[in-house]
Amino acid sequence: MAFMYNQIPKSLKPMNSILLIIPALGIVGLIAMAIKSAWVTKQDAGDAKMQELAGYIATGAMAFLRAEWKVLSYFAVIAAILLGWSGGLVEDSHPIIAVSFLIGAVLSAFAGYIGMKIATKANVRTTQAARTSLALALRVSFTGGSVMGIGVAGLAILGLGGLFIVLMQYFVPEGAAVTGLQMKKAIEVLAGFSLGAESIALFARVGGGIYTKAADVGADLVGKVEAGIPEDDVRNPATIADNVGDNVGDVAGMGADLFGSYVATILATMVLGQEIDASSDKFGGMSPILLPMLIAGLGLIFSIVGTWFVRIKKETDSVQTALNIGNWSSIIMTAIASFFAVKYLLPEKLVHRGVEFTSTDVFIAIIIGLIVGTLMSIITEYYTAMGKRPVLSIIKQSGTGHATNIIGGLSVGMESTVAPIFVLAGGIIASYEFAGLYGVAIAAAGMMATTAMQLAIDAFGPIADNAGGIAEMSQLPEEVRHRTDNLDAVGNTTAATGKGFAIASAALTSLALFAAFVGISGISAIDIYKAPVLAGLFVGGMIPFIFSSLAIAAVGRAAMDMVNEVRRQFREIPGIMEYKAKPEYEKCVAISTKASIREMIAPGAIALIVPIIVGFTFGPEVLGGLLAGVTVSGVLMGMFQSNAGGAWDNAKKSFEKGVEINGQMYYKKSEPHKASVTGDTVGDPFKDTSGPSMNILIKLTSIVALIIAPHISHKDHTAAVIKEQTKAKVEIVSETVVK
Amino acid sequence: MAFMYNQIPKSLKPMNSILLIIPALGIVGLIAMAIKSAWVTKQDAGDAKMQELAGYIATGAMAFLRAEWKVLSYFAVIAAILLGWSGGLVEDSHPIIAVSFLIGAVLSAFAGYIGMKIATKANVRTTQAARTSLALALRVSFTGGSVMGIGVAGLAILGLGGLFIVLMQYFVPEGAAVTGLQMKKAIEVLAGFSLGAESIALFARVGGGIYTKAADVGADLVGKVEAGIPEDDVRNPATIADNVGDNVGDVAGMGADLFGSYVATILATMVLGQEIDASSDKFGGMSPILLPMLIAGLGLIFSIVGTWFVRIKKETDSVQTALNIGNWSSIIMTAIASFFAVKYLLPEKLVHRGVEFTSTDVFIAIIIGLIVGTLMSIITEYYTAMGKRPVLSIIKQSGTGHATNIIGGLSVGMESTVAPIFVLAGGIIASYEFAGLYGVAIAAAGMMATTAMQLAIDAFGPIADNAGGIAEMSQLPEEVRHRTDNLDAVGNTTAATGKGFAIASAALTSLALFAAFVGISGISAIDIYKAPVLAGLFVGGMIPFIFSSLAIAAVGRAAMDMVNEVRRQFREIPGIMEYKAKPEYEKCVAISTKASIREMIAPGAIALIVPIIVGFTFGPEVLGGLLAGVTVSGVLMGMFQSNAGGAWDNAKKSFEKGVEINGQMYYKKSEPHKASVTGDTVGDPFKDTSGPSMNILIKLTSIVALIIAPHISHKDHTAAVIKEQTKAKVEIVSETVVK
Repeated sequence: MAFMYNQIPKSLKPMNSILLIIPALGIVGLIAMAIKSAWVTKQDAGDAKMQELAGYIATGAMAFLRAEWKVLSYFAVIAAILLGWSGGLVEDSHPIIAVSFLIGAVLSAFAGYIGMKIATKANVRTTQAARTSLALALRVSFTGGSVMGIGVAGLAILGLGGLFIVLMQYFVPEGAAVTGLQMKKAIEVLAGFSLGAESIALFARVGGGIYTKAADVGADLVGKVEAGIPEDDVRNPATIADNVGDNVGDVAGMGADLFGSYVATILATMVLGQEIDASSDKFGGMSPILLPMLIAGLGLIFSIVGTWFVRIKKETDSVQTALNIGNWSSIIMTAIASFFAVKYLLPEKLVHRGVEFTSTDVFIAIIIGLIVGTLMSIITEYYTAMGKRPVLSIIKQSGTGHATNIIGGLSVGMESTVAPIFVLAGGIIASYEFAGLYGVAIAAAGMMATTAMQLAIDAFGPIADNAGGIAEMSQLPEEVRHRTDNLDAVGNTTAATGKGFAIASAALTSLALFAAFVGISGISAIDIYKAPVLAGLFVGGMIPFIFSSLAIAAVGRAAMDMVNEVRRQFREIPGIMEYKAKPEYEKCVAISTKASIREMIAPGAIALIVPIIVGFTFGPEVLGGLLAGVTVSGVLMGMFQSNAGGAWDNAKKSFEKGVEINGQMYYKKSEPHKASVTGDTVGDPFKDTSGPSMNILIKLTSIVALIIAPHISHKDHTAAVIKEQTKAKVEIVSETVVK
Repeated sequence: MAFMYNQIPKSLKPMNSILLIIPALGIVGLIAMAIKSAWVTKQDAGDAKMQELAGYIATGAMAFLRAEWKVLSYFAVIAAILLGWSGGLVEDSHPIIAVSFLIGAVLSAFAGYIGMKIATKANVRTTQAARTSLALALRVSFTGGSVMGIGVAGLAILGLGGLFIVLMQYFVPEGAAVTGLQMKKAIEVLAGFSLGAESIALFARVGGGIYTKAADVGADLVGKVEAGIPEDDVRNPATIADNVGDNVGDVAGMGADLFGSYVATILATMVLGQEIDASSDKFGGMSPILLPMLIAGLGLIFSIVGTWFVRIKKETDSVQTALNIGNWSSIIMTAIASFFAVKYLLPEKLVHRGVEFTSTDVFIAIIIGLIVGTLMSIITEYYTAMGKRPVLSIIKQSGTGHATNIIGGLSVGMESTVAPIFVLAGGIIASYEFAGLYGVAIAAAGMMATTAMQLAIDAFGPIADNAGGIAEMSQLPEEVRHRTDNLDAVGNTTAATGKGFAIASAALTSLALFAAFVGISGISAIDIYKAPVLAGLFVGGMIPFIFSSLAIAAVGRAAMDMVNEVRRQFREIPGIMEYKAKPEYEKCVAISTKASIREMIAPGAIALIVPIIVGFTFGPEVLGGLLAGVTVSGVLMGMFQSNAGGAWDNAKKSFEKGVEINGQMYYKKSEPHKASVTGDTVGDPFKDTSGPSMNILIKLTSIVALIIAPHISHKDHTAAVIKEQTKAKVEIVSETVVK
């Protein structure tokens, strides 16, 4: 670091302390992660039987990651070569973008790896801890989740902050203005990091999502329905695959996802910040670029602090409350710290693309982001939680059969888009009102600041779910399973609210990326009343539909393969049902692995290729229309699918304690319960495969557009636009001269 | 007419022959309708039993229409008062718009009435004809459909053409330029006609859709599933309501729907045509305004000619082929006639908003419209027809249960948006390329020109469906039902392709309406990269989701009421099952009527109120964003829902002849068949309630925007836009001076 410090151009010295503080905060995070990870590792891993089962899960998960990485490494290398080659073609880009891309891709994959590695250790240790107390079980599983959360955020901040320093040194000569072309180029090359991260995220999310749901649906259809054995029964050949799925989908997939989202949000704000003339600050005019990274760093530190508050003492204490306290304390601390960061960094007055605002306005925009995120979580919880009107309506409609259960869930899912859209629209308008497009971007960055905590809360769920599976397979006492079930139930709610959060940040980030794209591609507007732009909007709107169609169809196909394999093993291996013979777990793991790797290609490719084709064929404005279409349709389809799936799931779960329909009580195995299982199965790919991929799809499309923007900016400009731009430039020049 | 002729300002005399020919073509249509109607009425209506049952259906249908009209008349009067009042407030509007609105509303309702009246006569006469031959049954049912199709088109052309003459006399003084403000005002007031028509269409489509599916689902769930009696059994208390539903939903609702669509498409082209300086034509510069009406008139005449070709001779002749011949001959004749109409009316060169094109280009745009419509129908047919890959995949997935059947159908529905979107996008770009925005509008008008034929083909389906119901209830010989089933099966396909057609025309029309809205509201662009516009886009995109949610939830609720009533009758009226006691049909009819009237309010109100609130609060550009959102999301949701529903329906129907799944044959009442029934029931509200409402929703929102445009045009303009406009005006003035 000291070495680098000396190499920083003198003109930029005033802000170098902040520049170095940012990666340093990332390193602090990684150290905290290592400490927590060591703590988890030294916990008791239980008896031999438990360790054997956990070993299968860990091996299966690694097998998947290796298979996935193999395919993705081909993709990454080819994409990097193309990027590097094309980066040399136009003036505004640079071949070094290939390196950025590869670093982003590797770190995203590594983020998933860290999460999965710790999750496959924490699961069995949580089971063992649950033999003692709920408090210890929560501590182990939540610490496991924290390792992942803190690791993801730490890697992102270190990677982004470090790479930014290097790129600045490379591109920005001494004395160059922050708003100048050199800095613009440095940040555009940095966008390659985000492209790498989001590409891997998309494949990891889709691949993991297909894996986990194929195994889940397959295991349930034959095991629970046909053979009549309980969930996670050791006799079910697909049970290991099912538990592996929790790790590769809900942990590794989600880790890569949030790594990508986090980076994209920060980057979008940096791109817009570069356009702001803040030369009156104490940091060489760099404060609007540094702010999002610094806030992320602060959010990471306060997330670590927040994890200390997630504790319960008694068996009867509320796990949800403990998580809420941790979450809220880190949000509030980050908000307060942001105020000082904003006031310290930014000059009093700023102007971005003609909109004037103050540093206080920027802080208010951050708070708006936090409020939007919170409201999104509350609304999502309402639509998916047990005992609330939406889930109750689905339960009631289960009384008249499978079809009405499905109609009820679809209706709830569609309805659940209304309130979030108003919140989002309000958030966009309000943050824009306060601090222009930079305000919208920084609102998203504020919302994502406590990603480490969000992810810890999210990732603890699948760890607890796995722990329950190991307890069941090891035939441990009822109370152990009871404790892990308690954790798992809370995990279902946090998973749903996490998705609401992710989609809200994607919507705000994508607007910032729009704005960045418009700036770089040199168009002055994306005017949807032009016919080709509207055509782009239609095509963009269609992408989330075909993406979802491919993803859920893939789950259907892979589940069928799994069903046939499980049926074969029950038929051909005598003694399985009497615990005399061991099922061939690895064959089911191999089926899920192969199917998910194969099926993740097509949806991922669509997201990457369509914007490139449209951009090069029809130019930047039509591509802008496409982006808008993907964003609107993706946000709606994401919320619709995730919430419908969550509501169906909890409608089914409600039957465990019994539900009342028209004055009569119904329990598990009743006809209405069977109808609710149908809804849950339909909801599985909705909420865990296609739904949560939407936010990556949205951002990835925007980042692809951003990256190709310099290449297409000179194409297909209508005469009018060129005329307008020329006029605008003339005005700027004349204004400058007057000053 | 002679009286009017003399009152036409002298300056406009050169084109008055065309002006008068247009309503005259409408009158020719109405005469043809009367002749066909008389022919149907004089056919044999069968024995006393059949007539009694048909009487119940006719009475129930009229009861619904009366109840619906009562509610809608309150709405229409209040809306008219508001429109009249606000029309007096700003310079660009006029109170007389209230009269336009009321005429449109009344004619739209009347169009539905004509269809329903003839359908409730043709149904029993088709049954009776089916006792003789398939040829006669087709002739009666198709003539019934033709009466409705020709009536709808005739009323629309007469209403629009006649009202236009009156408004021109009122607003346009002698010597005024066609491109001047007076003519603009006349056409803006004419837009009230379209608003009235589309408003009634939306309520009629939603109300009728809820009615028919509540009765259908309710009758099936208790009758077929619980009591084990066949469909349309006279013992089922809901069977009359089910048959009434075909008439109020698939006939009256669809009639009002297509009346509204037809008018909106013609009007949108007229609005854009008014902006074109065609003073070199032989019609006082009015040719671009007259063209869409004339093409519609020609389409009507050639649709009447086309109906003569729909004949079969032998029992084994293909009904589908007969319909295709009729359809194709009317399309080809209309295309040829359009060429001469274009060449006769339009000057050689035209300019619209800076885009130059020739009269040949306009003709090519019409042909593009016809091609888009045809491709949409072919694609829709592929996704919903028996024996094709999509339906076969759903059948296969029925083999593993209800859930996989649903996943399969949802996946097919989502996938089915891809090809149509590319066709639409291609059509938009191509027609724009040839003749600018006027080209896009005239393409839609070309596509809709043969509405009379399309609607005849569409409406014959429910008539045949009803005829089958009457045959079953009257316990007529097997062969009668066999003949009506043959017609009904073809009707299912034509219903699906008709929906594809409607959504394509809505997409093109909405772009034309956009353009018209932009022109009237005085904004220069709808720029989605502005934050508030993007917020509008999000809110607009959400509207089809909440609309669909409300509509399908309403069907669910109404079906539950129906189920409870049918259960009550079976329980409390002894002797129903032994044919000794007659069920209280009228109670079920009353339930469906009441529920549908109650439930149609909320979705309809959203479509009308949201654009008004957004427009007045945030101004025209944000409203433009909202329109784009509604359009994109509505087109996608419309196709997704209609095609998923159609595919589920035909997957279920495939089991009647037996299907092969993994080498084994399955028939009705097998487990896979039960799963397919679940899919069909979920698909019912998709394809007959929410799905087909989407095209009306899209156009209605755009028309509302168009109507309020003069009121909001001076609001919330950003300084930049005002500056730009001023500049543009200065340029126009200086150009005029130079000339």
